[in-house]
Amino acid sequence: MTDPQTSNIWTEERVRSTLPARAQDSHKGTFGTALLVAGGPDMPGAALISGLGALRSGVGKLEIGTYRETIRAIAHAAAEATYVPDALIHIANGSHPLTSYKAIACGPGTVPDALTEAAVGNLVKSSAPLILDAGALSERSYAQRSAPLILTPHAGEFSRISGYAKERIAHSPELCASEFAETHGLTVVLKGPQTTIAFPDGELYRNPTGNAALAKGGTGDMLAGIMLGMLCCHENWRHAVLNAVYLHGACADEFIKTRSPHTMLARDIAGWLPEVWKQFE
Amino acid sequence: MTDPQTSNIWTEERVRSTLPARAQDSHKGTFGTALLVAGGPDMPGAALISGLGALRSGVGKLEIGTYRETIRAIAHAAAEATYVPDALIHIANGSHPLTSYKAIACGPGTVPDALTEAAVGNLVKSSAPLILDAGALSERSYAQRSAPLILTPHAGEFSRISGYAKERIAHSPELCASEFAETHGLTVVLKGPQTTIAFPDGELYRNPTGNAALAKGGTGDMLAGIMLGMLCCHENWRHAVLNAVYLHGACADEFIKTRSPHTMLARDIAGWLPEVWKQFE
Amino acid sequence: MTDPQTSNIWTEERVRSTLPARAQDSHKGTFGTALLVAGGPDMPGAALISGLGALRSGVGKLEIGTYRETIRAIAHAAAEATYVPDALIHIANGSHPLTSYKAIACGPGTVPDALTEAAVGNLVKSSAPLILDAGALSERSYAQRSAPLILTPHAGEFSRISGYAKERIAHSPELCASEFAETHGLTVVLKGPQTTIAFPDGELYRNPTGNAALAKGGTGDMLAGIMLGMLCCHENWRHAVLNAVYLHGACADEFIKTRSPHTMLARDIAGWLPEVWKQFE
Amino acid sequence: MTDPQTSNIWTEERVRSTLPARAQDSHKGTFGTALLVAGGPDMPGAALISGLGALRSGVGKLEIGTYRETIRAIAHAAAEATYVPDALIHIANGSHPLTSYKAIACGPGTVPDALTEAAVGNLVKSSAPLILDAGALSERSYAQRSAPLILTPHAGEFSRISGYAKERIAHSPELCASEFAETHGLTVVLKGPQTTIAFPDGELYRNPTGNAALAKGGTGDMLAGIMLGMLCCHENWRHAVLNAVYLHGACADEFIKTRSPHTMLARDIAGWLPEVWKQFE
Ligand SMILES: Nc1ncnc2c1ncn2[C@@H]1O[C@H](COP(=O)(O)O)[C@@H](O)[C@H]1O
Ligand SMILES: Nc1ncnc2c1ncn2[C@@H]1O[C@H](COP(=O)(O)O)[C@@H](O)[C@H]1O
Ligand SMILES: Nc1ncnc2c1ncn2[C@@H]1O[C@H](COP(=O)(O)O)[C@@H](O)[C@H]1O
Ligand SMILES: Nc1ncnc2c1ncn2[C@@H]1O[C@H](COP(=O)(O)O)[C@@H](O)[C@H]1O
Ligand SMILES: [Mg+2]
Ligand SMILES: [Mg+2]
Ligand SMILES: [Mg+2]
Ligand SMILES: [Mg+2]
Repeated sequence: MTDPQTSNIWTEERVRSTLPARAQDSHKGTFGTALLVAGGPDMPGAALISGLGALRSGVGKLEIGTYRETIRAIAHAAAEATYVPDALIHIANGSHPLTSYKAIACGPGTVPDALTEAAVGNLVKSSAPLILDAGALSERSYAQRSAPLILTPHAGEFSRISGYAKERIAHSPELCASEFAETHGLTVVLKGPQTTIAFPDGELYRNPTGNAALAKGGTGDMLAGIMLGMLCCHENWRHAVLNAVYLHGACADEFIKTRSPHTMLARDIAGWLPEVWKQFE
Repeated sequence: MTDPQTSNIWTEERVRSTLPARAQDSHKGTFGTALLVAGGPDMPGAALISGLGALRSGVGKLEIGTYRETIRAIAHAAAEATYVPDALIHIANGSHPLTSYKAIACGPGTVPDALTEAAVGNLVKSSAPLILDAGALSERSYAQRSAPLILTPHAGEFSRISGYAKERIAHSPELCASEFAETHGLTVVLKGPQTTIAFPDGELYRNPTGNAALAKGGTGDMLAGIMLGMLCCHENWRHAVLNAVYLHGACADEFIKTRSPHTMLARDIAGWLPEVWKQFE
Repeated sequence: MTDPQTSNIWTEERVRSTLPARAQDSHKGTFGTALLVAGGPDMPGAALISGLGALRSGVGKLEIGTYRETIRAIAHAAAEATYVPDALIHIANGSHPLTSYKAIACGPGTVPDALTEAAVGNLVKSSAPLILDAGALSERSYAQRSAPLILTPHAGEFSRISGYAKERIAHSPELCASEFAETHGLTVVLKGPQTTIAFPDGELYRNPTGNAALAKGGTGDMLAGIMLGMLCCHENWRHAVLNAVYLHGACADEFIKTRSPHTMLARDIAGWLPEVWKQFE
Repeated sequence: MTDPQTSNIWTEERVRSTLPARAQDSHKGTFGTALLVAGGPDMPGAALISGLGALRSGVGKLEIGTYRETIRAIAHAAAEATYVPDALIHIANGSHPLTSYKAIACGPGTVPDALTEAAVGNLVKSSAPLILDAGALSERSYAQRSAPLILTPHAGEFSRISGYAKERIAHSPELCASEFAETHGLTVVLKGPQTTIAFPDGELYRNPTGNAALAKGGTGDMLAGIMLGMLCCHENWRHAVLNAVYLHGACADEFIKTRSPHTMLARDIAGWLPEVWKQFE
């Protein structure tokens, strides 16, 4: 649709016109249940950060699938979620049904091992929009699926899963993202100082928001969570992906108006989201 | 008293005239001890959310009955409460005395199984006002009791416990709630975009507050907690029920003045409650 | 000194003239280490609430002696404290040295059993100002000690430890408190809607601050903690006791300027203390 | 360079001119990964406090090496960090590689025992700037290393590790710090009401910020964390050390503008840092 070379900016106007209303007569079932598979033994925080991102971004209900130990550590802080203990195992062996989810995200804080790989293999077979991030990103082939598949790598992860050299990605992020997206029939959110969003049909956007306050561990986990929530409250999944990237960055932009960019924590993004989102409604 | 067809709105004026003063010479014993039975293995957060709701709503003392593991997870966040470990078991087998409570709530985050059913069986025999929510709601018969029995189902739960078809409930929520309340001699708080409160004698109200920010997991738990607290500080239990529903919604209305409705967490309601409640005093 | 019948009010002016400066050249050792023995298996929150009270009230260092399980639950929320696991046991059997403490408090959330009694027996033998509250209050005889002994009962607890009838205490709180204080050579802080502070030499004050927002579980724990901290930063221990009661109430008074008194949590007091204290400096 | 007798003040102007920008095209890798080894069985909070300090001070990524039990307790509160369980053991026995870190800090809340000593022995051999604080400070010899070694003792700790009498340190802090720094080829941050920073080549500064609100347990842990973070975002490590001390004190100065100095918690410093840091950019 768009020529990768002259990609479009996902502008404030587009955000304003695509953010969903939250219908007055809705109930939590209207927005559905999201499944977030996140957190590993040494990275429990990623499950919390992405969980808060999802909860603050329009889900109806959120289930966080993670380790028992991680549940104990974070349950009070993401109290609105319910929990699926040992989710990776149960998803990998097919004992956790996936049919009821409105959207699924997997990867923040998970270890990229055989268990994760097996779980992703089953998640891909589900019929819900699926976000793969961080530990769930690997070099693999992608079977065609009816629902959107969205990968959210940063440049290093994109190089690893695509085989493209880092230099090539740095030089032509939009071309690389688009090529990979079209070849594999999926969406690539190539994260970085300027995030590129490439859809499988060649549609391509650049995100204008965000700043170096985001250059710190955890901000990618937050983005995955926000995107998961957005998939639940948007009718158009592309708008969900684009608006997630946009508002995630806009929160960081709001932060640095009054605070040093060196000092932001990923969690602050969820703190600012309610007021920032409102500015675009 | 009122014709279900032309039910009354529980208005701001009624709220203003029925909210209790907190008498200057009171002490915590004046308001009594509330028992909250909540939280399950995979839903620990519900115990915290409803606990915070109760603590912020006028209780004298609060005891939270939940699993040992949940106590460990939430005790620091609801530090003003004390805890009853394995409460469901002890209530079910009659080993936990219930005579000293001013009000009791059961259900947020609990699993609707035989244990819960047995516990509810004993709770109903107590002489305190009793709120049954979520996991404590089931299709059962209700022995007459002297103190108020209050059920707080959403439409889906109401259909399950009443046998009424969902369509019928959607079409005539007030008639259904009233009929069920009068038949079983209890109070039905039929929750939804517009919550209906039906008392056993036919008195019926509609709540005018609240918005779609509430359409997210956990907000019902918060309501149960607020209602429990309100029962402790109101002399008139009907006012407690009505004002709980009203202020719960009013907090959400305050939230969306400055924040997107997609972003609210149940816990935020307890955060806003102190200032919102004050506006009606 | 003062006639109990015409007791003095501990006024704002007295607070202003007795609150200590925090000397510019001080270090944490200047204010010493406080020991707080608090929290029981089902009342972990009391250790946190009183711990936060102490930390926000001028201690140099704080050690919280509590159960291992409670440490796990609260350590992140009172991160500035260090911990003494199983303190009651170690104090009771004399294996925890008490010589280095500037002040000690025992009782919030502890169970009034033989173990507590044995621990209190040893605490009383220490040479530090000692606060006994809640579970550490019992009917016992008090050996003379050089450092101040301060009991902080509410009316019910005072009746239990003094044998005075509740009616008598309600009718003549100042006479009762004074009599008990003089007889046993200790200080009584008789808490209630109007708190009476009776020193062993007959000096007696009434506290003018506070309101019914305090009539909720946990506020007494907070007072014990604030008093413990105050003992560390005041030169005159009587001023510490009086200013603790005063500022504790003043925080509640500040709270209800903008919030409903039904909604305050004990923890909020520590949140308001920094700004409220400043108003009197 | 400067005569110890007429040491320089590290002034606001110097701070302004040396604080780094956070380059717009940076990512978390730009700022590198910091390793914080902190927290002990009875001092879990120190790991959290210093961890928050580091996260708010410009790191790219933070790994906190601490006990498994401490991880469980703090992971939700420092969710942006990842964790190295039993780090002291793994560092002491050489099984945890140290080559990838941009900066390392060790000591807050750790016990000064043989295990810590062994771990420090290996940390010193790494090629990253290294901060030793609290439990990692001992009387030992220092092998020459290429990267900066920074000790952050208060006067008592400095006396213990240097053998200088406390009186001598109190009388001539700058001479003592400088002499020790030059003799051992390392940097001494001699903390106190007026902190002295002595570099190994004789360069010496006095810090003008800070007040007695800092005279409370935990503030030193916070400084170690802030300094660790600053080492990651500054090009010039001396500026990192100096600006950490300066901003740490400036946060306390901001606090007491509106709050009593008796009431500050170490954690508040991290809360104020974002806005205070901004004031100097
Ligand atoms: N310098 C920067 N400017 C704008 N956004 C950034 C910058 N650095 C990182 N980000 C964003 O922060 C997130 C980092 O994700 P991750 O690398 O997975 O932790 C992504 O959304 C990036 O787009
Ligand atoms: N669209 C809406 N407008 C107003 N209130 C709502 C709406 N959706 C849910 N609620 C309220 O949020 C709570 C949901 O409870 P539950 O379904 O048990 O989680 C109830 O108090 C509902 O009345
Ligand atoms: N109605 C009231 N007015 C003023 N202070 C109160 C009131 N009720 C309780 N308090 C204070 O709150 C605390 C309760 O302590 P406790 O009974 O140990 O939880 C004491 O400091 C009381 O003085
Ligand atoms: N009176 C004071 N004035 C200024 N800074 C202080 C004062 N007391 C302590 N500090 C600072 O607080 C921190 C205490 O560290 P530590 O002794 O390791 O807990 C150091 O950074 C000191 O410089
Ligand atoms: Mg990432
Ligand atoms: Mg519900
Ligand atoms: Mg008490
Ligand atoms: Mg220190």
